[in-house]
Amino acid sequence: MKAKVYVTLKTEVLDPQGDAVRRALHALGHDDVKKVRVGKLVEIDLDGDDRAKAETELQEMCAKLLANPVIEDFRFELE
Amino acid sequence: MKAKVYVTLKTEVLDPQGDAVRRALHALGHDDVKKVRVGKLVEIDLDGDDRAKAETELQEMCAKLLANPVIEDFRFELE
Repeated sequence: MKAKVYVTLKTEVLDPQGDAVRRALHALGHDDVKKVRVGKLVEIDLDGDDRAKAETELQEMCAKLLANPVIEDFRFELE
Repeated sequence: MKAKVYVTLKTEVLDPQGDAVRRALHALGHDDVKKVRVGKLVEIDLDGDDRAKAETELQEMCAKLLANPVIEDFRFELE
């Protein structure tokens, strides 16, 4: 099974990396860019075909390792 | 308009960060994780409502700044 995990900073957390990207895009002439937030995309290949088990496991992987729940939100899709 | 840009390493490019995450997940007991690839998710807020223009612009932003076309692939969604 293939899973995609999306990790994003919580809305109330500042994103200096996103701000730097926004400024760089403005410098390239893309003045209509209002806001940029940078997050992570983690693609995971899993053995087995028990979807329920995989979902439980992904939830745990995200909460324990892939995301920092204090400042980040996560969601995942299982193919 | 809101856009989501997904930047991933090309399949033939090694991903040491992904391998480190895989090993860490194994150490946590998630032995069914076969492969991990880490990419970027860039969320962009754009002014204006001309979808065609936004798509052209996003294509350029990705090719010039957000992704390194030598080693990375990108795709984007416009909401």
